[in-house]
Amino acid sequence: MPKNLCLGIDIGGTRIKVATVDPKGVIFEESIIDTNVNAKPINVLKDIIDVAKKFKSYSKIKNVGVGIAGDVCFETGIVRFSPNLKKWKNVKVKEILTKLTRKKVYVDNDANIAAIGAFWLEGKGKSIDLVCITLGTGVGGGLIFDKKLYRGVSGTAGELGHITIDAYGKKCNCGNRGCIETFVGARHLSEFVQDYLKDNNSKMIDKLTNKNYKLITPQLLTQAAKSGDRVAKEIWKIVGQKLGVFLSIIINFSNPDTIVLCGGISHAKEYFMKYILLEIKTRAFKSATKACKIVVSKYASNLGVVGAAMLSRQ
Amino acid sequence: MPKNLCLGIDIGGTRIKVATVDPKGVIFEESIIDTNVNAKPINVLKDIIDVAKKFKSYSKIKNVGVGIAGDVCFETGIVRFSPNLKKWKNVKVKEILTKLTRKKVYVDNDANIAAIGAFWLEGKGKSIDLVCITLGTGVGGGLIFDKKLYRGVSGTAGELGHITIDAYGKKCNCGNRGCIETFVGARHLSEFVQDYLKDNNSKMIDKLTNKNYKLITPQLLTQAAKSGDRVAKEIWKIVGQKLGVFLSIIINFSNPDTIVLCGGISHAKEYFMKYILLEIKTRAFKSATKACKIVVSKYASNLGVVGAAMLSRQ
Repeated sequence: MPKNLCLGIDIGGTRIKVATVDPKGVIFEESIIDTNVNAKPINVLKDIIDVAKKFKSYSKIKNVGVGIAGDVCFETGIVRFSPNLKKWKNVKVKEILTKLTRKKVYVDNDANIAAIGAFWLEGKGKSIDLVCITLGTGVGGGLIFDKKLYRGVSGTAGELGHITIDAYGKKCNCGNRGCIETFVGARHLSEFVQDYLKDNNSKMIDKLTNKNYKLITPQLLTQAAKSGDRVAKEIWKIVGQKLGVFLSIIINFSNPDTIVLCGGISHAKEYFMKYILLEIKTRAFKSATKACKIVVSKYASNLGVVGAAMLSRQ
Repeated sequence: MPKNLCLGIDIGGTRIKVATVDPKGVIFEESIIDTNVNAKPINVLKDIIDVAKKFKSYSKIKNVGVGIAGDVCFETGIVRFSPNLKKWKNVKVKEILTKLTRKKVYVDNDANIAAIGAFWLEGKGKSIDLVCITLGTGVGGGLIFDKKLYRGVSGTAGELGHITIDAYGKKCNCGNRGCIETFVGARHLSEFVQDYLKDNNSKMIDKLTNKNYKLITPQLLTQAAKSGDRVAKEIWKIVGQKLGVFLSIIINFSNPDTIVLCGGISHAKEYFMKYILLEIKTRAFKSATKACKIVVSKYASNLGVVGAAMLSRQ
């Protein structure tokens, strides 16, 4: 059994993943539990540790790392707010888990955790500068600069979803206008498609939604594209073009060796990746483009748990 | 006399500044010479070292740092190309100066050098994450992350002038569209003003240019604004708004403690700063905005020479 293990905990809105992870980011033991969104957070945390204690490697665990979506203070380990877990308000996760495990505990938001996970799983710990982008309901970002998570001076660096690509575009929840999230965030994308269908007819989307366009999700658009639907393909082309503008900004700004895309929308990669690359080709600096590998994560379901475990090693 | 001095050399299109600088970024001795743009680069470098050798602190110099505008390879110390010095093509500056001085020599481009200079002069070496933006003919950027110059994986990080703020805007020299440089770079700005004057009449600008609008420069626009010209003030307002969008991207991306503006256009700060701050207030993350000081450099003429000297200590 490896000696130097850390425990990773990835708390999602539907599932919680728990694993012991070795110093190279390899999972040794793992377990998945359903998220009880109605339970008190302290009871959820107790259940998690009960599961972990059943690992035969539990006694070998050094530190504990936790990843969760939302507003998380890394310094204090307090989860101020989590969009998918309404009961999680100002929860002292670090304090609670320290008491339960008597180990060092680190807590961070899902975007930073995914970046650390991507650094180990996609980059095998060899990347120097890596940018991870989570394409979900919102658009999140995590920055690994010089092999370390870059947080900025007050911990908000990497708010990449709120990079403007159209200064006078649609209003975003954050107060800004034309953020990339207003184009490719799942909710905004659904709204865009509802508008788009006013001038563009798709029998396939009509069939899949029974003409209730509020049911449109990225998954449904991918399904339609897979069936050969022209309109769905055109929408993914537009998504690819917007993402291409966005990634060009990231490349010119930070010149990373790797950009990792993950999250629900990234599953449609075969329909948008070509257009991302076309935009980057005309927009980003050539030498920086050449130095940058762009990948859709193959390890998406493990990025969180591995990232959480490896956070506790940083 | 301080013991641990470095020599800084700031090579500009009209003047060359040479100075010995102490470990805290304070100039000990300095000299300025006119740039002979027609001379062979090797002779210019010899002249520079002759000047330096007259410093009474010359024997105390440890390393040598050089800053110059253009395409510079930090690794090899070769100046591939410099826009204001046509004779400087593939000049082995590091090799030549190593022979002339028998000291360690470091060479970098003006934007990186300015960032290091700003870190020491504006930030007194206490900033953690600082972004320096040079607003001149072009728009350049230099990034100090975690107290060190951040170069990215292939040395092109911080190409901030080519951050898109309008994805389908004006074509930029770099191949991209709607880069911030296409709005506030001095040449693009002059072109914009020539257009703007078609619908907006300014007696002051007419007088200053004798209606030859090709003579419009940022300096002339500042002069017109100082005289109370409404049109010139309106133009600086637009510049401020565009810069506000741009700085919001920088704040959301990298969450720095300081943004330093320098270069010719920054002299018009009293006419645009207010609009930068207004845009940032509505666009950037509040906690990141609160953590970020935005300043126009008070040390502009020394950023290059101090940055060059301090580069050689990194």
